[in-house]
Amino acid sequence: MALIVQKYGGTSVADCSRIEHVAGKVAATRGQGHDVVVAVSAMAGETDRLLGLANTITPRPNSREMDVLLATGEQVSIALLCIALEKRGLKAQSFTAGQVCIRTDSAHRKARIQEIDTERLRSALAAGRIPVVAGFQGVNESGDVTTLGRGGGDTTAVGLAAALKADECQIYTDVDGVYTTDPRVVPEARRLRRITFEEMLELASLGSKVLQIRAVEFAGKYNVPLRVLSTFKEGEGTLITYEDKAVEAAVVSGIAFNRDEAEIALVGVPNHPGMAHRILGPVSDANIEVDMIVQNVARDGRFDFTFTIHRNDYPQVMDILQANLGAIGAERLQGNDRVVKLSVVGVGMRSHAGVASTLFRALAEKAIDIRMVATSEIKVSVVVDEKHLEQGVRALHQAFGLANPPREDSLHRGTAG
Amino acid sequence: MALIVQKYGGTSVADCSRIEHVAGKVAATRGQGHDVVVAVSAMAGETDRLLGLANTITPRPNSREMDVLLATGEQVSIALLCIALEKRGLKAQSFTAGQVCIRTDSAHRKARIQEIDTERLRSALAAGRIPVVAGFQGVNESGDVTTLGRGGGDTTAVGLAAALKADECQIYTDVDGVYTTDPRVVPEARRLRRITFEEMLELASLGSKVLQIRAVEFAGKYNVPLRVLSTFKEGEGTLITYEDKAVEAAVVSGIAFNRDEAEIALVGVPNHPGMAHRILGPVSDANIEVDMIVQNVARDGRFDFTFTIHRNDYPQVMDILQANLGAIGAERLQGNDRVVKLSVVGVGMRSHAGVASTLFRALAEKAIDIRMVATSEIKVSVVVDEKHLEQGVRALHQAFGLANPPREDSLHRGTAG
Repeated sequence: MALIVQKYGGTSVADCSRIEHVAGKVAATRGQGHDVVVAVSAMAGETDRLLGLANTITPRPNSREMDVLLATGEQVSIALLCIALEKRGLKAQSFTAGQVCIRTDSAHRKARIQEIDTERLRSALAAGRIPVVAGFQGVNESGDVTTLGRGGGDTTAVGLAAALKADECQIYTDVDGVYTTDPRVVPEARRLRRITFEEMLELASLGSKVLQIRAVEFAGKYNVPLRVLSTFKEGEGTLITYEDKAVEAAVVSGIAFNRDEAEIALVGVPNHPGMAHRILGPVSDANIEVDMIVQNVARDGRFDFTFTIHRNDYPQVMDILQANLGAIGAERLQGNDRVVKLSVVGVGMRSHAGVASTLFRALAEKAIDIRMVATSEIKVSVVVDEKHLEQGVRALHQAFGLANPPREDSLHRGTAG
Repeated sequence: MALIVQKYGGTSVADCSRIEHVAGKVAATRGQGHDVVVAVSAMAGETDRLLGLANTITPRPNSREMDVLLATGEQVSIALLCIALEKRGLKAQSFTAGQVCIRTDSAHRKARIQEIDTERLRSALAAGRIPVVAGFQGVNESGDVTTLGRGGGDTTAVGLAAALKADECQIYTDVDGVYTTDPRVVPEARRLRRITFEEMLELASLGSKVLQIRAVEFAGKYNVPLRVLSTFKEGEGTLITYEDKAVEAAVVSGIAFNRDEAEIALVGVPNHPGMAHRILGPVSDANIEVDMIVQNVARDGRFDFTFTIHRNDYPQVMDILQANLGAIGAERLQGNDRVVKLSVVGVGMRSHAGVASTLFRALAEKAIDIRMVATSEIKVSVVVDEKHLEQGVRALHQAFGLANPPREDSLHRGTAG
């Protein structure tokens, strides 16, 4: 008998018949003799409805109150799912984040989980009940409601699995696993049976919207085996686990891309120590996440500093930098919010040379201009004009031979499922 | 500077523009230099929407989970009202019942307030913030969400006013005060400027749906001056306070009626001690409220026992009594769920004879058959067939001269407002 945390997203609980379908899946897992803890999102569309109400009143609603408002979405879902489980004769008990005590920091709408008290969940399990927990939300030290931001439901599930030392955390969504790239862009894209946390992290952060990045980080940190499955289609999904070093890995596991990038460049920044902090400090203070950062070596006592952010944050970041331009002493500020990022990801890259050169060649053959490059141990990312997105992804998927399954279908072989 | 608790019902916060209107009224009260604590209901229609969702899954949803579900309605309202207040530059802070700590018993969907912790509200007031509290809900000892049942928002407001020792509790609704009877039935019905708690209690319990009965009881018990006003129409409403014994009171202040009655009679019950308890104990155990109870003196060792309940509870009560009929030993069980109750209410009745006879004559003149009679210190109630409701109310309103304002317009005169 295992302890399994299952998380159902907004499309999985979009209406009452789907909620009953989810109750059936939970019941089936129980029927196999497992203990189950369920985390759910708000019904699809509900969060947008609530945002719409607030925005009718003001475009800049108070963020503490927004969290109070948005948290109702998941509260509706937990109650309805429990009602559906009870209808099937199962004992269920709903928990708001405050009732579990999912403690977060106080960064409203972007809060981070700090601690989860498992006592009430464990006693519900011991009493034979299925705990159903509101995803996406928490409470801060003062008992104020917080939310983890969109997609935070995954983070809740992984946090619960880690705190409860669950055997597996299953993320049910509307896709049936992790693919080598987006099948809507490359029809030959293939579902991966297994992938490493590191690869998944890169794929998630780079825009494969299957899982939220915080959730994958969490899962990796606490070594929670994570499985992505479809609510609507039977199948084993994709299991995300630690790299199995014993096996031969494919060089590249997937091509990720992010449509919503913006690039900002400060040209001719005086080469003083602490300059990067002076540039990005105010951006970070505004709680805006910076993605790629590229800095050239200085020439004539000045250097160029380029970074990327989410496109939504572009106007605010430009305002912040414009205001600080004098203090920074840069010659020029320029930006472009019509760019995208393409990334080649794979743990096998570590021991294989030539990934970058294959990438550059593939893009050059399609005459795609590369605006920025950044590399990490297991990925190479490039920023290109948004008009090249589809063509670029297809070129890379083909150049790395991703349409053809490697031995054992995936990156790894010979590991136990 | 006074401390005022204001409660806005579902129609007052039915949409975002009304919520902004409410924010304006709260701001105006603050502008007069008063401290304000606000309690709000769910947006009109929201509770029905949530009930509909649950009923789509099952006609008998788990009641613990129903409370979790329904409590989201007020949580949406408190957040939106705070957002609207903040937009006006006022500092506001929303509170769920759990955050205030409105402690109730565990009778889900019918919970009763046991205790209210005012600490967080007082510190919010001290910090210049307007606390906005979710009405209608509480938490039990285990921290589970409870609801006070429909209309519980009024009870929350009065409970807050009592706990905070507020100077006045203002209930904003879609009617502009308490009338001598329902103006839809009797067009000459007149708004009362003042009324006593006792009278209001009788009027509320007898179906003048202006205020919830628990709220009036609460207000009377803790001597919280209660004012009923319209959200949409300026005016002083009706103030509900203790009786001023020094002044001459009108004999009758109003005619109440209740459309949703059902009467149940046990005929030929053996005249043993404890028989009333044996009849009503199981009804009370099912959390069903019994209204009028009439028992005749016994004849030949047997008596008839008749009582009224809410029409919705009729099938369940009939089932309960049918199951216990053997144990009770009654000759026959009979019921009628097509009856209504008419009541004449007034504190002045205490010192005036003849109210009952005026009532009986007025109904007799219209050939209205009286099925049951019950009296208290300040009211006389009769049960009649539902077809006589309108005609009966009009006859009584006229018989007691309610269309003509007494001196000082109301029951009392010479008391300070």
